[in-house]
Order: sequence, then C-alpha cells, then structure tokens
Amino acid sequence: MQDSKTLIERFNKDLSELDFGKTPKNLYDPIYYSINVGGKRIRPLLCLMACELFDGIYEDCISAALGIEIFHNFTLLHDDMMDKALVRRGKPVVHVKWDENIALLSGDAMSVIAYKYICKSKNNLRDILEVFSKTALEICEGQQYDMNFETTTNVSEEQYLKMIKLKTAVLLAASLKIGAITANTTKKNTEYISSFGENLGMAFQLQDDLLDTFGNPEIFGKEIGGDIIANKKTYLLIKALELASKEQKQKLNYWLSNKDFNPKEKIEDIIYIYKELNVHKHSENLMNKYFETAFDSFDKLEVAYSKKEVLYNYAHSLKQRDF
Amino acid sequence: MQDSKTLIERFNKDLSELDFGKTPKNLYDPIYYSINVGGKRIRPLLCLMACELFDGIYEDCISAALGIEIFHNFTLLHDDMMDKALVRRGKPVVHVKWDENIALLSGDAMSVIAYKYICKSKNNLRDILEVFSKTALEICEGQQYDMNFETTTNVSEEQYLKMIKLKTAVLLAASLKIGAITANTTKKNTEYISSFGENLGMAFQLQDDLLDTFGNPEIFGKEIGGDIIANKKTYLLIKALELASKEQKQKLNYWLSNKDFNPKEKIEDIIYIYKELNVHKHSENLMNKYFETAFDSFDKLEVAYSKKEVLYNYAHSLKQRDF
Repeated sequence: MQDSKTLIERFNKDLSELDFGKTPKNLYDPIYYSINVGGKRIRPLLCLMACELFDGIYEDCISAALGIEIFHNFTLLHDDMMDKALVRRGKPVVHVKWDENIALLSGDAMSVIAYKYICKSKNNLRDILEVFSKTALEICEGQQYDMNFETTTNVSEEQYLKMIKLKTAVLLAASLKIGAITANTTKKNTEYISSFGENLGMAFQLQDDLLDTFGNPEIFGKEIGGDIIANKKTYLLIKALELASKEQKQKLNYWLSNKDFNPKEKIEDIIYIYKELNVHKHSENLMNKYFETAFDSFDKLEVAYSKKEVLYNYAHSLKQRDF
Repeated sequence: MQDSKTLIERFNKDLSELDFGKTPKNLYDPIYYSINVGGKRIRPLLCLMACELFDGIYEDCISAALGIEIFHNFTLLHDDMMDKALVRRGKPVVHVKWDENIALLSGDAMSVIAYKYICKSKNNLRDILEVFSKTALEICEGQQYDMNFETTTNVSEEQYLKMIKLKTAVLLAASLKIGAITANTTKKNTEYISSFGENLGMAFQLQDDLLDTFGNPEIFGKEIGGDIIANKKTYLLIKALELASKEQKQKLNYWLSNKDFNPKEKIEDIIYIYKELNVHKHSENLMNKYFETAFDSFDKLEVAYSKKEVLYNYAHSLKQRDF
C-alpha cells in the first residue's frame, strides 16, 4: 500500500513515459501538451487507491488509471473549445496554441487512446469497459446540459445538481469503482466505494464553484470570478436568484443581461449580493452534506481500518483544499 | 450464409432499432440523425460477410458491425466540421442543422457509443478491441494528413497513398478482420482477408475521387467537381501536376491559387487538362491494380469456394459502382 505522494509520483512518471505515436506531429503534439500541462491527477489516484485498498496491485490497475486521466484531459480539451476558453492551468489551450481543427481531431484521438489504455486492463475487462462507457456517455450528457443552461434563464437547483453529477461526480465514482473491480472486491464494497466517489464528486464541484468566486487567486491558480463573468449557472447564482428580493433580482438580472460591462464591477456587485443573501453558506452546507454522505459510505466499506487510511487522508485533503 | 440484400436489410433494421439514450435531446437527436441519414453500410456488411464466410454467426458479429458503422458515421460528422461542409447525402450536416458545439459533443458521444457496441462482441474481445483502437487512431492520422495537404503545395503520390490508406483503407481492412476474428478463423485467413480489405479500400478511394470528377451527378448523388473546387489533393491533381507541361502547370496553379472564381469554369478548365494528360487513365490503372491485389488475397483464403460467393459478388459490385 503506497501513500498518496508515492502514488502520484509513480503515476506521473508512468504517464510522462507513454508513447502514443509521433506523426503527424500536429496530431500528437497537442496530446502530449494537454497531458503534460499538469493537473491534480485526482481520478487516477482514486482509481489506484481503491485498487490497493482492496488488496489489488498497482501493476494491474495502472493502465485503467492512465486511460481515465487521458479521457479526463480529452474532455477538458473539447470543453475548452465549446466554452471558447483561452487559457487552462496558465497555458494557452490547444485550439488557441494550434487551431480549432487540430483541437477537434487530437481530442478525438485522445478519446481513442483513453480506450486503448482502459482496454489493457488485466482483470474483469468487460465489467470495467461497461462502467467506463456508461460514465463517458454521462459526461457528454452533463456537458450538454451545462451548455444548455447558458441559454436557460430558470435553472432549478435539481437540474443543476443533476448536471454536476453527470459532468463531474460520475467520473470520480467510476474511477474508484474501476479500481475496486480490478481488485476483485465484493459487490457491496464496489457499490459503497462508488457511492463514496459520487458524493465526493458532488462536494468537489460545489467547492470548485465556491473557490471560483471566493477563493484566493494566488492559491487557486486562476483569476477569481470567471463563473460570474460567464454567467455560469452555478449553485451560488441559482440560490441567489431563488432567495433574492425584488431589488436584488433586478440587479442580478441587470448584470446577467448586460453584455457591455466592467468585469471587476460586475464581480464585486454580484459577490456583494451573494454575501447579503449568504448563498456561500448555503453552498457550504450542501457541500458538507455531500462530504458527510461520502464518508458515511466510506465507513461502510468492509475492509480493515488500517487499510483505509491512505484514501481517507487523501479525500480529506481534497476537502481542505484551497486550490 | 445470407446474401448481401438480406444482410443489409437485417443490418439496417437492427441499426434503426438501437436505443442510445434520449436526454438531453440535443445531444442524442443529432446521433440518430447522422446514423439514419443513410449510406451504403459497406463496412458493417464486410464485417458480417467475413464472419459468415468463416462459419461465424450473425448474432455474434452484429454488435461489432454496429459499432464500426457508428464509428464511421462519427468520423464523417467531425470531418464535415473540419471541412466546413454544408451537406451530406443531400441533407444539412449536423453543425449546420444544429450548431458547432452540438456537433462536436454528439460526435464525441458517438465515438463512445461505437466503443460500447464493439465491447459487446462475444468472441475474442481483446483481439477485436486491439484491431479497432489501432484502426481508429490511424483514421485520425489519415484525417490529419488530409488536412495538412490543404496547405501543402507539393504532395507526392506516395504521401497521398499513405493518407488514403490511413483515412479509408484501414477501416475496410479492420471491418473484415474483426468479422474473421469473431468467427475464430486461422491467422492466415485473418491476414489474407485483411489484405483483401486494405487493397479494396485503396481502390475504393481512388474510385471515389474519379467519381467526384468524372461521375454522373444524377447517379453519384452529389454535384460533380467538389474536389476540384476545394483544391483537394486527389490522385488526379497530383498526377496532373506531375505530368503537366509548363503551360498546363501555370493554368493549374492559376486555378489553385485563385480565390475568386466561377466554379463551373474552374471545373471545366481543370477537367480539360485532366483529359489532355489522361490522368483519369493513370488513376484507373492504379485502381485496377489495387482491385487485382485485393482479389489475389481473396483467392488465397483457405475456405470452400462456394462460401466465397457472397463476399466476392459484393466486392465486385463495389468495383462496378457508379454511385
């Protein structure tokens, strides 16, 4: 059983040594670029930790963990195109550094490469593929809902939670589940760890939205207020629109419909309303509820307490994160 | 053993009855639309015929055949975006009928759905997945080379043949190979049928280029001269540039560099040069060489002569096609 620091170093080394192909250069270069631009590697770590938790070995699980991380990076690449983002992790995105067509096609190739690694899984391949394909499709659904929200004025809390479940939570759940399946654990444990992952994922996304608005830009690694500027239908905004007085609603709608604005002013004004309405508290409460449900499932795992430590500590570090 | 008419009807029925998902509607509608817009279903037919040729059964092969056809349609959807095409098979393409983001994302979902069906293959799943992923990646490489050719002035015959091999021929080869693997035939037969498919695919693409320029528009189903207007580096153009006199080369380069032109005039002028240089004959000769090599491999298949009839006749009908 390896601690998270050892695991992440080993994973990053394995990831950096992969050889996907070389020519045509402008197909493969963006793939290496996307993967090596960094990231917290949360999903593959969860996958590997779940595997080791149930006495599986790193070697049996690494190819699935690599496939999951490559797939995740593929979704970021195409999402950035759809969102017309310019920068990710402080670096220009692929469709800016190269062009739209290259971003489209290298994304397609990454998705195939992701499957290629998933398919190298040694144990229970059919089960792993079923979980992976189901999840991959749900992620597409989540992204489509997210895009649809851009032109929807009344997104309900329920719709929002369904969207983040599909877009974010299911992949965290699947990562853990695939690790568990690789290790051949019981059905019960597989379901508990999957439920742990899904609730962790929900909490994680609510936290991400909170950090985007209330985080420390120096630690968070990007500008604060991106969601506000883009009129993203986050939990904060949905809750604010729900709780707002007539006057506050007018102000919010003014900023949501105004296309020509001073970004700093818009951010400050909306954060002011959020604070008046205490929506960050609502969001924190819901986030904590998801963390609690996650750890309830975690407690139910039928495995020696000492083995749980690595994954437990790692999940807790995610809870405490400010990045 | 079923004849090609029975097979195509059965396949189309199975394809039309698939349920991929329903919501969000604007993710799934374009997928049903892309798949039901029609097509010759060459790849799944080859796959099913190869399976039955080696005594495999339809039921064991249908999911792979469906996956291959869905993947092929996914590549068309994204290729149409890259080519900024407006119409396919007489109908508006997805990124026109819906929009760019929807086309991007439903294409991504189609690629996952394709894998989902491939993964349902009953026999020799690992072998099938290996062939499929390798091929899928090669198709991406082929498309990237094709795009790179748009801004390359001197594309050699060799480069062109490598491109069409990757973009078109390998999927025909893989379709047959996967059918053969499903049927558990010998390694030798698997290699022969794969070589048959690759050479058939090369011939098929050369024929496609010929039809685009010299076909009968009423039978071909689209306007003639699309490749000429788009300055596509086809075998015809590459050969023409190679054989052209100084004067002919000047004329060709005039049309290739002129951005403001009368389409009809450009097509007529270039076809005139093609005819002067007899490039369609060169292309036909090369095409026939590939057909011959294909049928040489076909002859080597170690299987009772009577069983070969269906696939032989079908491949011959492709050779004779004018659509």
